[in-house]
Amino acid sequence: MTIDLSAYSVRTDLALEARDLASSRGEIPGVHTSNFEQEGIKVSLIDITSQQGSQALGKLPGHYITIEVPALRQKDTDLQDRVATLFAQEFEKFLKKLNIAPDASILVIGLGNWNVTPDALGPLVVENVMVTRHLFELMPGQVSPGYRPVSAVAPGVLGTTGIETGEIVQGIVEKTKPGLVIAIDALASRSLERVNTTIQIADTGIHPGSGIGNKRKGLTVDTLGVPVIAIGVPTVVYASTIVNNAFDMMRSHFQKQTANTGQILGLMDGMQENERLQLVKEVLDPLGHDLLVTPKEIDQFIEDIANIIASGLNAAIHEAVDVDNVAAYTH
Amino acid sequence: MTIDLSAYSVRTDLALEARDLASSRGEIPGVHTSNFEQEGIKVSLIDITSQQGSQALGKLPGHYITIEVPALRQKDTDLQDRVATLFAQEFEKFLKKLNIAPDASILVIGLGNWNVTPDALGPLVVENVMVTRHLFELMPGQVSPGYRPVSAVAPGVLGTTGIETGEIVQGIVEKTKPGLVIAIDALASRSLERVNTTIQIADTGIHPGSGIGNKRKGLTVDTLGVPVIAIGVPTVVYASTIVNNAFDMMRSHFQKQTANTGQILGLMDGMQENERLQLVKEVLDPLGHDLLVTPKEIDQFIEDIANIIASGLNAAIHEAVDVDNVAAYTH
Amino acid sequence: MTIDLSAYSVRTDLALEARDLASSRGEIPGVHTSNFEQEGIKVSLIDITSQQGSQALGKLPGHYITIEVPALRQKDTDLQDRVATLFAQEFEKFLKKLNIAPDASILVIGLGNWNVTPDALGPLVVENVMVTRHLFELMPGQVSPGYRPVSAVAPGVLGTTGIETGEIVQGIVEKTKPGLVIAIDALASRSLERVNTTIQIADTGIHPGSGIGNKRKGLTVDTLGVPVIAIGVPTVVYASTIVNNAFDMMRSHFQKQTANTGQILGLMDGMQENERLQLVKEVLDPLGHDLLVTPKEIDQFIEDIANIIASGLNAAIHEAVDVDNVAAYTH
Amino acid sequence: MTIDLSAYSVRTDLALEARDLASSRGEIPGVHTSNFEQEGIKVSLIDITSQQGSQALGKLPGHYITIEVPALRQKDTDLQDRVATLFAQEFEKFLKKLNIAPDASILVIGLGNWNVTPDALGPLVVENVMVTRHLFELMPGQVSPGYRPVSAVAPGVLGTTGIETGEIVQGIVEKTKPGLVIAIDALASRSLERVNTTIQIADTGIHPGSGIGNKRKGLTVDTLGVPVIAIGVPTVVYASTIVNNAFDMMRSHFQKQTANTGQILGLMDGMQENERLQLVKEVLDPLGHDLLVTPKEIDQFIEDIANIIASGLNAAIHEAVDVDNVAAYTH
Repeated sequence: MTIDLSAYSVRTDLALEARDLASSRGEIPGVHTSNFEQEGIKVSLIDITSQQGSQALGKLPGHYITIEVPALRQKDTDLQDRVATLFAQEFEKFLKKLNIAPDASILVIGLGNWNVTPDALGPLVVENVMVTRHLFELMPGQVSPGYRPVSAVAPGVLGTTGIETGEIVQGIVEKTKPGLVIAIDALASRSLERVNTTIQIADTGIHPGSGIGNKRKGLTVDTLGVPVIAIGVPTVVYASTIVNNAFDMMRSHFQKQTANTGQILGLMDGMQENERLQLVKEVLDPLGHDLLVTPKEIDQFIEDIANIIASGLNAAIHEAVDVDNVAAYTH
Repeated sequence: MTIDLSAYSVRTDLALEARDLASSRGEIPGVHTSNFEQEGIKVSLIDITSQQGSQALGKLPGHYITIEVPALRQKDTDLQDRVATLFAQEFEKFLKKLNIAPDASILVIGLGNWNVTPDALGPLVVENVMVTRHLFELMPGQVSPGYRPVSAVAPGVLGTTGIETGEIVQGIVEKTKPGLVIAIDALASRSLERVNTTIQIADTGIHPGSGIGNKRKGLTVDTLGVPVIAIGVPTVVYASTIVNNAFDMMRSHFQKQTANTGQILGLMDGMQENERLQLVKEVLDPLGHDLLVTPKEIDQFIEDIANIIASGLNAAIHEAVDVDNVAAYTH
Repeated sequence: MTIDLSAYSVRTDLALEARDLASSRGEIPGVHTSNFEQEGIKVSLIDITSQQGSQALGKLPGHYITIEVPALRQKDTDLQDRVATLFAQEFEKFLKKLNIAPDASILVIGLGNWNVTPDALGPLVVENVMVTRHLFELMPGQVSPGYRPVSAVAPGVLGTTGIETGEIVQGIVEKTKPGLVIAIDALASRSLERVNTTIQIADTGIHPGSGIGNKRKGLTVDTLGVPVIAIGVPTVVYASTIVNNAFDMMRSHFQKQTANTGQILGLMDGMQENERLQLVKEVLDPLGHDLLVTPKEIDQFIEDIANIIASGLNAAIHEAVDVDNVAAYTH
Repeated sequence: MTIDLSAYSVRTDLALEARDLASSRGEIPGVHTSNFEQEGIKVSLIDITSQQGSQALGKLPGHYITIEVPALRQKDTDLQDRVATLFAQEFEKFLKKLNIAPDASILVIGLGNWNVTPDALGPLVVENVMVTRHLFELMPGQVSPGYRPVSAVAPGVLGTTGIETGEIVQGIVEKTKPGLVIAIDALASRSLERVNTTIQIADTGIHPGSGIGNKRKGLTVDTLGVPVIAIGVPTVVYASTIVNNAFDMMRSHFQKQTANTGQILGLMDGMQENERLQLVKEVLDPLGHDLLVTPKEIDQFIEDIANIIASGLNAAIHEAVDVDNVAAYTH
């Protein structure tokens, strides 16, 4: 099953954004959505159940959870704890929905590059995940109940290893035969406000070209032979995206303020979004402008969100780890 | 002598940008400029010699050197070595111009925060500066010729120390009585293409509100009692600045392409730059958009440019350190 | 008042060790000791109240607290929390004993070198101390009750700054006029088992030659004009010390096992401890053997103990910070 | 072919030490040794060509190079450059001796733990190795002559991944099919003076139980199916080893000084070395004494020696990289 996503020129790694873009054109068959909000944390569940829905969104059929926490960039440890707890609850439900057995062994893969702060999310999560697989191997029968075999690897990136991440992970999966792979990756965002405030969980795996790095091989049930849950957080945004979004915001700002229904942004008024984004890129590129950028405070943001995900994962995958004492297992 | 800079709403830490803004309105008395280019490195010298020039540029009277290297963000070690060498040569001339004695002791102050990558320039430079003052103190008369007493401190930032940086530096200057202070600081840029590609050297010191941090006390000859040379590198840029610059670029792009002398960017055509920037900020702010952002590759960029400055400083301030072997003293 | 400590050739930075060495020769006038143990944590209080006691121990008159936790090198977060709580309680009592006013401002000085792991204790503690002084300065009257003005600086070491740490601290004290200085330092231990398991608190300040670095100026009430509490943790030990201690242990091992009251360790039997240590150093030195060494796991140990001290300090110096929620303020 | 090494209770990872221990008992058949010295760098070549030689040394048959540089712990960048150059020359000869084709692809494995400084040698080398394999894969035929396909991975350690390192490496080797594996590992030393001063190169691979970590699966031609060159550097030493060595040194010190041929170290005089080491361990253990320790300056030492090995490797494995400009490729 392959779906041609190339028609969707305004690409996004987030199903939520794709749904918002598509649904502006009306109801979408085969796309089921629900959401709730809890003290500043918004959770959206999107299930894509048909080819038609998949085509409409430009996302693979599957289950998607999006956790949005606009206040996450303010250093608020209480909020962070609440997000970790909610992440754990949703992730546990997600595992049940996918029929992952409570004792299935899990391999956590932290994609990305240690030495590039906005790309270090995966390795940082791996560092704080409770690994137990070696205990099961070395002392079978002696591990306390409530734990399952968990292993965790940060395989590096193509530019520093010379090897496709997909190949390394395939090799490890073949040797260790986990029942599930969880892959954590930093994403490029379509909007500045999502950077370090949104977490997406999806059972569709990691696909070539997603994330910050240029992956050419995916991590999916097709390539690895086991289910793959992807956890992604937007940590960077293209300068051109910031500009393009700003044009939209300027226009709606003007539209609210003026009765003028004629010229608003002049020559740009008549452009399609894709056409305009293309133009913005062309204009910025010669000056070396079309950089991926990240907030100045990225060091702290990445550390905070990696702790949230690691804490949430530990509570969700080990029954014996409680969502209340989740913080004790990370640092 | 105080000059009211508040009238200049489009503030910039770079004299070169101020000169460009001001000179668009014609020749400026009391501002003398020269520049040369050498294999992709552009050096501009600006001397502001009168109150009139100072007012016109919104910068204090003094001497400014700007080194622009658009290709610096490409990891090119040869280019980096050439920039370090050129920096050393220009800095050495600068010291002579300011009549700093060859044996005057120097205190290097690395402003900024270790733990915030785009703000870590100062501390990183300090780490690679060759300090010798203690050798002169402990073994007077035994230090090899060609060195002068150099000390170096990274005093931290207000938010992590609870003390104005200016107070800490004053305390250290009073105790150690250097003949010159060199302060290194990361700056906020007015344009994305300057980020990590431009180095400014100025004999006007560091002023409240400049740089990334919120300094309320300056480091100047007035506050410290010794000459202060400031070395600054833009490492971050406001999202609003990126957007505002893009409007300009879009307009000139359209102007080149169309004979249309009427509507170009619609309602924005009639706005002053300040008015428009203000509007962009208003539009971005509610969404938490008006962040300071930095390129994704900031970890590497900061390390590279800190090495350039440290190497260049070591060669410029110690006669015995040659511009050719400058790299041997840093790592 | 100067006391010649040079007669005490087996130097130790810990009053507890000095007391143990001295008391083997009988009761010491002017030295008052008490101690208690609580779930694996041993607390000893030593007050040296007379010149005679001071001379006998080779330590300055003053108050000393020693917290010994042999199990601290095992990664046990529960134990770490209990040590932090007990540290906070004892430190609070200590402040009262010294008549430090509840609203006296405090300057925390983290001695040592960021880039040398076993010497990074002070800088790591400073990083996790809650600083508030700037809030009192910027918004007087608006800081919540239960806090006092606290500032914190890691001034670096002589080899990297070129300036005596004492001079830098003097400068800062003169500018900011705190009511109390707390200085944190890594120490060289006289015995391997103390490394990363013992914390000493003393009101005698930091003296030249103590700690790992070679300080030639002290941080004391005499040099700074305000009371100075020193917090020290042994993090390194000389190879010669390990060897010398082992000789003692071997001898008592043999003595327990044999009726032989004659030859035990042959020629070393007749030696004084100082004489023997001197010999061990002579034998090890030519081979470059007499290094300061630290346990392989030093990165983790230093982080753990720095968190304990920072958490304990935050709870002890800010009334509003509870010993129960102490961990929330550090990371 | 398996050789029981368990009889050799004084284990050492270094063939040179094993040879020295064994040769004290006379000439060893099947062990060929040569060595030379060059400006403070001593190079020893040991070839073990027979089972008899192997048994005598307790080391597998194969080729061993040992580079000893006692002055390496002094920060001397000139010396470091010379060691890197000599390492490159010897490594290049070694590749020829083993008949590794000039265009054979190489996989560099950095064993050990990023977060434990004395165990971070492997990951640090990997970070500075020039990887090229992806260029050959992505742009076949376009890579400049003089390079070969090189990949590099730091697979982590059992305690943090939950997976035997051997399994991970096997998986990667099966996927990428290199012609040679080079594995870099930190070792435990038998003597304090070797720590961070000695480099061993061997074509026998990495065996279970060697190195700092507790590997239970080896990296050898038998387990991986390709030749494995191991590069090891002692970075830690047991406290008991320091003590035991000191006893020997004390005894020979006394022997030189006295005519006394009777009692020297009393009861220890009659002990075999193994017996005595066992006793030292027993005596130290209850006190938690028998730690692995490392010099205080380990952060700098590890960085220096990792740079030497990475520079040397880059020059040796890529013909186009010259030993003279070797430093340009690392940082």
